[in-house]
Amino acid sequence: MVDIGLANAEAVSRMMEARPVLVGLAKARDVIPGMRETLLLHAGPPISWERMSGPMRGAVIGALIFGGRATNEAEATALVEAGLVEFEPCHHHQAVGPMAGVICPSMSVYIVEDKTHGNRSFSNLNEGYGKVLRFGAYSPEVLDRLRWMEEVMAPVLAEAIEASGGIDLRALIAEALHMGDEGHNRNRAGSALLLKALAPLVVRASPSLDVAAEVLRTLCDNAINALNPIMAACKAMAGAGHGVEGSTVVTTMARNGTEFGIRVSGLGDRWFTAPVAVPQGLYFPGFKAEDAGGDLGDSTITETAGIGGFAMASAPAIVNFVGGTPRDALNATHEMYEITCAEHKYWTIPALGFRGTPTGIDLRKVVETGIVPRVNTGIAHKEAGVGQIGAGLVRPPLRVFEEALLAFAQEYGY
Amino acid sequence: MVDIGLANAEAVSRMMEARPVLVGLAKARDVIPGMRETLLLHAGPPISWERMSGPMRGAVIGALIFGGRATNEAEATALVEAGLVEFEPCHHHQAVGPMAGVICPSMSVYIVEDKTHGNRSFSNLNEGYGKVLRFGAYSPEVLDRLRWMEEVMAPVLAEAIEASGGIDLRALIAEALHMGDEGHNRNRAGSALLLKALAPLVVRASPSLDVAAEVLRTLCDNAINALNPIMAACKAMAGAGHGVEGSTVVTTMARNGTEFGIRVSGLGDRWFTAPVAVPQGLYFPGFKAEDAGGDLGDSTITETAGIGGFAMASAPAIVNFVGGTPRDALNATHEMYEITCAEHKYWTIPALGFRGTPTGIDLRKVVETGIVPRVNTGIAHKEAGVGQIGAGLVRPPLRVFEEALLAFAQEYGY
Repeated sequence: MVDIGLANAEAVSRMMEARPVLVGLAKARDVIPGMRETLLLHAGPPISWERMSGPMRGAVIGALIFGGRATNEAEATALVEAGLVEFEPCHHHQAVGPMAGVICPSMSVYIVEDKTHGNRSFSNLNEGYGKVLRFGAYSPEVLDRLRWMEEVMAPVLAEAIEASGGIDLRALIAEALHMGDEGHNRNRAGSALLLKALAPLVVRASPSLDVAAEVLRTLCDNAINALNPIMAACKAMAGAGHGVEGSTVVTTMARNGTEFGIRVSGLGDRWFTAPVAVPQGLYFPGFKAEDAGGDLGDSTITETAGIGGFAMASAPAIVNFVGGTPRDALNATHEMYEITCAEHKYWTIPALGFRGTPTGIDLRKVVETGIVPRVNTGIAHKEAGVGQIGAGLVRPPLRVFEEALLAFAQEYGY
Repeated sequence: MVDIGLANAEAVSRMMEARPVLVGLAKARDVIPGMRETLLLHAGPPISWERMSGPMRGAVIGALIFGGRATNEAEATALVEAGLVEFEPCHHHQAVGPMAGVICPSMSVYIVEDKTHGNRSFSNLNEGYGKVLRFGAYSPEVLDRLRWMEEVMAPVLAEAIEASGGIDLRALIAEALHMGDEGHNRNRAGSALLLKALAPLVVRASPSLDVAAEVLRTLCDNAINALNPIMAACKAMAGAGHGVEGSTVVTTMARNGTEFGIRVSGLGDRWFTAPVAVPQGLYFPGFKAEDAGGDLGDSTITETAGIGGFAMASAPAIVNFVGGTPRDALNATHEMYEITCAEHKYWTIPALGFRGTPTGIDLRKVVETGIVPRVNTGIAHKEAGVGQIGAGLVRPPLRVFEEALLAFAQEYGY
């Protein structure tokens, strides 16, 4: 029999020793392995068009128009219904995308390289808040903005990142955790640090002062600009812990708006899924709980890697925002120590005496305690075309962890 | 008899309700009231050349060369000894400067306007760390850097600040306190927030991409860039509480490297001074405690206004740096509640359940408890020409508070 404790120690050590560095930005078709012209990547576990939630359908429609395969919603829907669009999870291509997470071949993606293990991971550009593609909006202004980002901003960012010689994202996250971020819902510090690392290089990479000012304005105005590269960094780190024989460490948690899915280090590429919950949170003016779509997005990769809801003690401003107290933030992190197998070596929490963040969710502990991971999240409108309507907290269904543990027992003969 | 409690409530309320907004940048000679060509402003209470510490003498020499009144150290010294240079405290001109705080007529200064009371305050540009004028260095590279800042950076910053329509520094400080800053020794978040507010405008104000990139590089590389405008904001706020009949609130604390001085709201413009202590702290490689100059600089205006050492609980990374624990950081702030008369209305500390920072030092409480204010500080080499050699913590002499309280008793007939 395998020694699960040893296997988990190995898995979580690999996760923490991964050193993700932002090394570039390029079109998905040029860098994502297995990307092809007929393919759209999406968040969460595999899903068919028929079962997709409203916001994910909206993002698919928008991506088909953005990519030039359709000119309107009807054409896009017809294309899908004719079977001319393939769908695969971002996670099957070492990529991650927040919310709908739809990535088409002509979108630019951040390239993150794990300098310890040599693997690459990817995430798309962040569009900001509100009426944006990743929350299911696809109106002309949403697409115009995406086109500006792709045509004007992406080439400048690509050259700036290249000129930087690489930005160590594990170090950036460590610093951001000391500046009130938890790395998922709150990325003000991380975005400012990324801005600091890139601003002069953005100017040098720009063809004109106008373009430089516009690109910087976009980066300065988007307090979650760093979310996507941080997610790619977390994907690199969680992924480094995957595939350890006998390990019960969870290496993927992702939502497609319909199902919540996990994958486990010692159980190969198999997904364990169950219907998503609806997040609890605060809504933008004019929206209410009944408008909320189901839990959505690959951004749970942050919790999987030891930040986000797990590092809540770093970011008491978030619980304050949803009506809680700083004590609740400390409690959230304390609770996550119950279901994880390590304290992070590089990511520490000032408010807990610089204790490492709870890292490496152990399937066994989740099932034994009944404590499921805490997840911070954005909230999309349940219908296609609307966009973000709030932000809040959510818990995954316990069932996926129970089923995964059963499968583990069968696989390893317990 | 006056009601001291009521007077103090009025003084501290005025301090907190002051709303300092960064509105401009201009040459000292054009905006600082009473500035004249023969005058140099300096940190702390009044002092003559004969009694000046090494680092302040170094800064005076550098400023005279920078200002074109001398071409070398010998000429500068001769000019001073011939009585051709006047010295007055920054504080006598609504200005503040970190460390030596030497401001000559041709240096650019930030203009901060208190939108509540209409007053203006000023501070110079921040040069970064190490071998810099404010720590007493005046070698050619120090002066070349100052000239670049003055000739290239200042016009761009001036135009960018003007275009911003004003940056609310009270709000910026509030946000920085939620991001791990205490606003005196640690200004990473504040500097990043200022960068975010100015970066696109800096580009638009620049004559070329090269200049834009150089200016942004300078702002991005200087993690205490925001210290000087923050000091001017604190000067505006502390100053708003000055002059309240019967108030024992301290409205100025400042060091000239030889003496520590305070002024009190109800005691007019009189300084109470005593010899400075030498800070305790960590030294840069190659330096030790014996090299340290005496406590220096106007930056104690931050503690006077309720941040810096008083907001240590916001910035546990600082005590960690000097070998303490996050508990020590909490204790530091808790101790300062003992000697202050309010909890800040706009500046709160996440780690203390968003309690307001201890604000408005009450002379009576300092003398009654024997607890003197905690001050975070940089450390200058004791000799002219060397520069910064470390950073640490210091306490002012109790004597100045005792003497001020005696004077208060005489003045008000207790």
